[in-house]
Amino acid sequence: MKTGISLEEAQTLLLDLVEPAKECLVPLTRAVGRVLSQDIWSDINLPPFDKSPLDGYALQANDTIEVSSSHPVILDVIEEVRAGYTSLKQVTSGTAIKVLTGAPIPNGADVVIKFEDVNRKGNKLELFYPLKSGSNIICAGEDVGQGEIVAKKGTLLNPPLVGLLAAVGVDLVPLFSKLKIGIISTGDELIDPSDDLRSGKIYNSNFYSLSAYCSKLGAEAVSMGIVPDEKDAIVERISKALEDTDLVITTGGVSVGDYDIVPTALDHIGAETIFWKIDMKPGSPAIAAKYKNKLVIGLSGNPAAAFITFDLIVGPIIKRMMGFFQELPPRITATLADDFNKSSGQRRFLRGRLDNINGINYAKLTGKQSNGVLKSMVDCNILIDVPAGSGPLIVGQEVLAVVIDNY
Amino acid sequence: MKTGISLEEAQTLLLDLVEPAKECLVPLTRAVGRVLSQDIWSDINLPPFDKSPLDGYALQANDTIEVSSSHPVILDVIEEVRAGYTSLKQVTSGTAIKVLTGAPIPNGADVVIKFEDVNRKGNKLELFYPLKSGSNIICAGEDVGQGEIVAKKGTLLNPPLVGLLAAVGVDLVPLFSKLKIGIISTGDELIDPSDDLRSGKIYNSNFYSLSAYCSKLGAEAVSMGIVPDEKDAIVERISKALEDTDLVITTGGVSVGDYDIVPTALDHIGAETIFWKIDMKPGSPAIAAKYKNKLVIGLSGNPAAAFITFDLIVGPIIKRMMGFFQELPPRITATLADDFNKSSGQRRFLRGRLDNINGINYAKLTGKQSNGVLKSMVDCNILIDVPAGSGPLIVGQEVLAVVIDNY
Repeated sequence: MKTGISLEEAQTLLLDLVEPAKECLVPLTRAVGRVLSQDIWSDINLPPFDKSPLDGYALQANDTIEVSSSHPVILDVIEEVRAGYTSLKQVTSGTAIKVLTGAPIPNGADVVIKFEDVNRKGNKLELFYPLKSGSNIICAGEDVGQGEIVAKKGTLLNPPLVGLLAAVGVDLVPLFSKLKIGIISTGDELIDPSDDLRSGKIYNSNFYSLSAYCSKLGAEAVSMGIVPDEKDAIVERISKALEDTDLVITTGGVSVGDYDIVPTALDHIGAETIFWKIDMKPGSPAIAAKYKNKLVIGLSGNPAAAFITFDLIVGPIIKRMMGFFQELPPRITATLADDFNKSSGQRRFLRGRLDNINGINYAKLTGKQSNGVLKSMVDCNILIDVPAGSGPLIVGQEVLAVVIDNY
Repeated sequence: MKTGISLEEAQTLLLDLVEPAKECLVPLTRAVGRVLSQDIWSDINLPPFDKSPLDGYALQANDTIEVSSSHPVILDVIEEVRAGYTSLKQVTSGTAIKVLTGAPIPNGADVVIKFEDVNRKGNKLELFYPLKSGSNIICAGEDVGQGEIVAKKGTLLNPPLVGLLAAVGVDLVPLFSKLKIGIISTGDELIDPSDDLRSGKIYNSNFYSLSAYCSKLGAEAVSMGIVPDEKDAIVERISKALEDTDLVITTGGVSVGDYDIVPTALDHIGAETIFWKIDMKPGSPAIAAKYKNKLVIGLSGNPAAAFITFDLIVGPIIKRMMGFFQELPPRITATLADDFNKSSGQRRFLRGRLDNINGINYAKLTGKQSNGVLKSMVDCNILIDVPAGSGPLIVGQEVLAVVIDNY
């Protein structure tokens, strides 16, 4: 077991231990926000055929070589083709076929001229200037060629990519299975928000914030309830969660006090502790253990500490298990917009908000920074990374920050 | 009816016409990503009582005034309190109560000293230095005070806010109702991706990309199917969608060609056209009409044009109807990282990607910019706003862009 390790070492240790979930085929209408388990190649050209981007006439550019407004050419309109249909006839010299927006280019034609730029009288068409072969034709495969890769394994499906898969005819998508994440809230002090608050008790918030986070990531949070500070009860609940879910998160019971018994319970189960305690504030008492091929991550019971360690450690694990190829949150530099008057003996993450003003990144603190305070998490979109041994921070100094996505 | 109006005028006209949906009460576990329909005030202090942030001893600072390592004070430990319980006894001069992390501060005590910083022998406690009243106490209401506002009407619920609502005991949340958005795909050329591609046909992608977008916004997309280019069929389908859903989106059939018949169908229904055609590319043929108190927005059938007008016009309407107080996408300035060799007679939106490198915003083009091309939407997170009458754009010039969120 390692102890007092850096955040980066904790992330690496855990990412190396987990694998993407099993594959499954999912209807395209339910695929957004999930991750491709295979590369997707296109079986077709997109668009599948040369087509007209506008309402006009398809003809041969050769027929217009010497044409001018004083010497127009006159062509016979032999057919009309709408989007969704194909022409029965072929364009030859001296003829044209009317094409509507999206219609396939008839055989023999190599240019389209706009409706508004010709003179039509009965079946005769008058043209007044030379045309360049290929003009106003959307070529087959312009968007995606047959056999071309559309998206790689590990890609998160966003709305335009969902559309692109539809466009190349993929209606069932190979995805990594949806994760089930068991969340256990430990602590004699916890009661559910639907109950009445009694003396000495607090409402359980960690289950709600972390399960909302899981659902934002596209995973399913499974409530494993509130468990009292009793070893046997915690052992039983973690064991059940290990059976029912893919990843187990506990909150509370991980410090070194007399009743901090999640580590004891994990030992009792026979789980192998990967690390206990990370060199950062808040969230230092986090523990990670492995039982068979599943992970249990024990987070601090303090709401902000639990949320921040979820952001920095659990989020990346979930993304790796979802099959997403970008697990770690991006890092940026920014100019501090507030003073922070405390020294930081330990490496510390401050809750802040990134604002880009005239191209400059400013990092503003979002409020009180205590371990228990949740309010300053609400508008937080960066965690400012303050190195161990830093003195007070002052407005205008450059800081490093981790970008988190609370929405 | 207005025609050829600016994007901004189109946005304003439509935002002024719609109202937030009805209110409903939703369990907190299903509230993330939705919008508060009322201000939320806290009925309690958070935390509800003064508590200890660590394992230690609660006592009176007065007992430690003249204490030093050579003249320690000795106190009687009279009780132990864990998180979730309250002390039965009171701290008086000469006594201390052992408190575990999260335990309420016993009456009479005004300071907590860390477990590691004292000498304990039996029930006796030895202290070696003076303590400052108030140290190591988390005060009741430190996070949120009783009667304080927690979140305002119109706020989107992110995971930490869900946690904060739980922490103040809100288990049923007043939200704006989930929107139902009817999506009609018009065009004789369309077939569903689950069908075989036939000559002259293309796969319907707009329904899939736009419904994924709706679900990303927290709205429910209702498929109203593919409708052929026949006025009566379109009239019937729009009428049905107006009955069944809160907002109706059509794609295709809005240009000026012989078979662009959505405007004709809207006229036939008796809908009042708000505008037809916006001065921008792609997406210029968009139409908006009102029937009774519902809107129908007709978008271009070209996939990229449909998506971009959805981003710029439909997204803000959905956000207003969801009750969200920030409807319009933010705008930024950036430095162009690619050449764009075409002149833009009309105002034009180019698909790009914003990258912040060393604090500088760079706008990179994501690929082909034709109306029909979807691939360049996939990595797009900005739409570069090119004014009408612009010549070719060159690397390094400053551009304005609208930030869109494809994930």
